[in-house]
Amino acid sequence: MKITRVEAIPFSIPTRRPFAFSGGAVHHAEHVLIRVHTDEGLVGQAEAAPRAVMSGETQATVVAVAGGWLEGACVGADPVRVEDIHARLRPLAGNHTARAALDIALHDVVGQAYGVPCSVLLGAYTDRVPVSHMVGFASPEESAEEAADLRARYGVSAFKLKVGVGADHDLATCAAVRAAVGPDALLYADANHGYRADEALQVLPRMAEWNIAWVEEPCPAEDRVGRSRIVDQLGIPVAGDESCRSLAEVASEVMDGRCRMVSVKTARSGYLTSRKIVALCEALGATPVCGSQLEGAIGAVAQAAFAASHEATARFPAELTGFLAYADDVIAEPPVIANGEMTVSGRPGLGITIDEGKLAHYRCD
Amino acid sequence: MKITRVEAIPFSIPTRRPFAFSGGAVHHAEHVLIRVHTDEGLVGQAEAAPRAVMSGETQATVVAVAGGWLEGACVGADPVRVEDIHARLRPLAGNHTARAALDIALHDVVGQAYGVPCSVLLGAYTDRVPVSHMVGFASPEESAEEAADLRARYGVSAFKLKVGVGADHDLATCAAVRAAVGPDALLYADANHGYRADEALQVLPRMAEWNIAWVEEPCPAEDRVGRSRIVDQLGIPVAGDESCRSLAEVASEVMDGRCRMVSVKTARSGYLTSRKIVALCEALGATPVCGSQLEGAIGAVAQAAFAASHEATARFPAELTGFLAYADDVIAEPPVIANGEMTVSGRPGLGITIDEGKLAHYRCD
Repeated sequence: MKITRVEAIPFSIPTRRPFAFSGGAVHHAEHVLIRVHTDEGLVGQAEAAPRAVMSGETQATVVAVAGGWLEGACVGADPVRVEDIHARLRPLAGNHTARAALDIALHDVVGQAYGVPCSVLLGAYTDRVPVSHMVGFASPEESAEEAADLRARYGVSAFKLKVGVGADHDLATCAAVRAAVGPDALLYADANHGYRADEALQVLPRMAEWNIAWVEEPCPAEDRVGRSRIVDQLGIPVAGDESCRSLAEVASEVMDGRCRMVSVKTARSGYLTSRKIVALCEALGATPVCGSQLEGAIGAVAQAAFAASHEATARFPAELTGFLAYADDVIAEPPVIANGEMTVSGRPGLGITIDEGKLAHYRCD
Repeated sequence: MKITRVEAIPFSIPTRRPFAFSGGAVHHAEHVLIRVHTDEGLVGQAEAAPRAVMSGETQATVVAVAGGWLEGACVGADPVRVEDIHARLRPLAGNHTARAALDIALHDVVGQAYGVPCSVLLGAYTDRVPVSHMVGFASPEESAEEAADLRARYGVSAFKLKVGVGADHDLATCAAVRAAVGPDALLYADANHGYRADEALQVLPRMAEWNIAWVEEPCPAEDRVGRSRIVDQLGIPVAGDESCRSLAEVASEVMDGRCRMVSVKTARSGYLTSRKIVALCEALGATPVCGSQLEGAIGAVAQAAFAASHEATARFPAELTGFLAYADDVIAEPPVIANGEMTVSGRPGLGITIDEGKLAHYRCD
């Protein structure tokens, strides 16, 4: 089997309401459908969800790089030779999101070729994963209402709260959501670099009152000294996300003791590199958690397959509700969340079908 | 004064012959002319020289980001408020090359507005800088011939040798170039990650025989343990380049002892961030060296102005001959190298004039 073409289709779908966090907001899914075409007719697909505030990539850069470097490195290669294709791409720096989507699309082809779902291809630890919901910036009351609503409709009992906007707002949000979802729900926080380190050490300890299980990116990634102090002094574990974008960054952060948990996002590091990151976490005793880039339904399907594949990633709920933020999607059958869980697809590869009418409607090239 | 528009004009000019290094080669200047237009008629200009192997940016991503984020952050702002414009851009990750060109174009406007050259605006340490020439991969004989030719034609007596291809070739190149340029010339080497760390420790000590003054990026940037060993064991100083792309990376590398010299490139970090990097180097006792991204003549003018501005950057020769690699240029008057030096422009701002006919000929949008 040989790759004949890498197609990049930009599409834009509005959010139901803007999703805000410290440092930005998402108003539209300005995403890209990556399609890997082969000479045997199999087509691998994946969704690139670029976030300029995270990686510097935009919809336009993903389209440019997919049609340039990625296609150039892939055409003529056998899609099962995933390590070889990554080696061909190695000279290209950055472009994590574009590379990740290509990697997942390759795995989609491979799964189809072998007749097995991606979740089986990757390890087949389980066939369902507990789901966590990421609550964006809003008033404490709105956040509590959103969490209670998710719990009622989908049985979700794990919530990530976006904080880093200011002590009063953030602590009130913790209090309101904890009151709304009860003592057994898993709550954790993500400051997205919103606090200065000293501020983080004043605000975050007070979150223990509402049993916040861990805090992601408490202060700017470049403040290594501050982060080390937070890890040393805060009684709540610190998770790395923006500071842990690549295998080498995870190694540096975990080995130097600047985090004990790592947010793993297949939207950012694809399957191949995400597996290496999970292996590194296992080796060093750090805990991987499957995070969200607010990808749409295709990305959620891909992330769920990954989360279900490994014992280490199935341990904590995976952030899989991002696609609910959008008013529509290009997938024919969105994934189902019930009883707080998402069951992985049993179909070969990612097992997704695109609604071509919707794709034609939302594409923006 | 208000910025009214950020224009990005891609242009492509072939090299006289491909410029090769460990990990890639440059065949064309696939660069972008950034123009910052203002309501007072002043126009700031700079050249973006994206290198996908260094930063992941390409001509297409620079154009996309300049017309998107950069213009969005700038329009309506006063160009003299450089720190404010950088603050507006802070949410955007990466895109160092595009950001750098914008920053230099802003300084070009500011210099014109104040009626002073950029080199004066930035510190005015001197008005001329010694020039270093970067010799690309070739046979040892060709490299020696190239160095001797540069010495004869321009009086250049500092040369960076691209190594990392293999011990025999690299050592033969050092020997041949040293023989060609004599004992007084400054020779240093750049492996561009070409050696594994253990290999670097076998090959590099032998370079002392030809008085190689320092070695850039001896091994892959992610091999932090290996690099630390090289710094500790090698009798030749190690310079950071690919591992030192941002202010935070320079801080991390220098403070953790993984390099003692830092390649500073205004093509990568613009004027504002490059100045902060130079200040950090001064603070920590590290040595900045003005490197080259193989920018064209506009970039060389910008880099020369920077190198001449600070005592710390004027200490060692600056890599300013990159523009000689191209068959032509879009600048009306290319900078002059004579007696091994480049004299900075005395005109306001960068002091450059574009040859509009050539720009029209080479533009590729």
